[in-house]
Amino acid sequence: MTLAIHNPASSAPPLGAYSNGISAPAGGRWLYIAGQVGVEPDGRVADGFAPQAEAAWRNLVAVLADAGMSASDLVKVTHYLLSPDDLAAYNAVRMRWLGAARPASTLVVVASLAKPEWRVEVEAIAWHA
Amino acid sequence: MTLAIHNPASSAPPLGAYSNGISAPAGGRWLYIAGQVGVEPDGRVADGFAPQAEAAWRNLVAVLADAGMSASDLVKVTHYLLSPDDLAAYNAVRMRWLGAARPASTLVVVASLAKPEWRVEVEAIAWHA
Amino acid sequence: MTLAIHNPASSAPPLGAYSNGISAPAGGRWLYIAGQVGVEPDGRVADGFAPQAEAAWRNLVAVLADAGMSASDLVKVTHYLLSPDDLAAYNAVRMRWLGAARPASTLVVVASLAKPEWRVEVEAIAWHA
Repeated sequence: MTLAIHNPASSAPPLGAYSNGISAPAGGRWLYIAGQVGVEPDGRVADGFAPQAEAAWRNLVAVLADAGMSASDLVKVTHYLLSPDDLAAYNAVRMRWLGAARPASTLVVVASLAKPEWRVEVEAIAWHA
Repeated sequence: MTLAIHNPASSAPPLGAYSNGISAPAGGRWLYIAGQVGVEPDGRVADGFAPQAEAAWRNLVAVLADAGMSASDLVKVTHYLLSPDDLAAYNAVRMRWLGAARPASTLVVVASLAKPEWRVEVEAIAWHA
Repeated sequence: MTLAIHNPASSAPPLGAYSNGISAPAGGRWLYIAGQVGVEPDGRVADGFAPQAEAAWRNLVAVLADAGMSASDLVKVTHYLLSPDDLAAYNAVRMRWLGAARPASTLVVVASLAKPEWRVEVEAIAWHA
């Protein structure tokens, strides 16, 4: 039982490091990861956009690991930024943590996150047989 | 094994083409579809809001089809617009592609999508026994 | 078969009434709840932010109940506000309805919801063995 990728020629090709569709067969465990932000395990907010993105992904992968999973188990990732100007820096961080994984993804630019100093939030859904 | 719709009288009725709740029994396949935008399979961005919405839904249904599913298998759809003024045009496109399907839905207006010319993004989750 | 909570010391601790990760074992029913807003079952929009938040959560819990579930079955909740100034009032309502439940959560501030008078929208995913 493994995840299947769906990138049909009849839809626009993926426009970044994601798959257009991923399906999971019956059975297996599902993990939901809360929106992770650029806060370190000691509670300090990382200074600047790229360090925040790095901390958010480090948190996300730590939650995956706690559930016995890794980036290759990601099915869906949703990314919230505060500015399109941060997109290139964000994608560099995202691709390093994703490795070869290409989960289904959505990225939107929102007005604000829960605290004014937070500049990125990333949540995820993962599955393992 | 089929999807069950939950529209209890004790909650506000659906305020559009959706159900307040949909539940799936144990088993079955789950498909996650990345946020689809108004880009054609050849990479061209559709010109104007309604053509973008049409292209985004065409992409979404193409991914469903690639997984052996159709609009009637949609469980949850999340819609991101850039302006409430586009809502009427969006709903016309959405309802044509949904047919009789009424997936659980959320619609929000965000500040921007990943590219400034994109005006709508739609993601979905589907299930088939 | 029960939900498992994942709050590893290697990730930033939860910064509110949520868990960083929740996993569900194979099997069980999944419920998707559409974005609920501050509209009463009779169609009237609640007057003011806190009454809207209250009505949205009352709707959400009514849908849970219709599926034979309760707040303790919530796996993921996504909260959309229009202003960070509403956060304290929102969290008071949210915590009263959650009780001891700590679902994975994401909260973002968006530009607008589908109608200009709506000030909060909350959607959820729940699981029951």
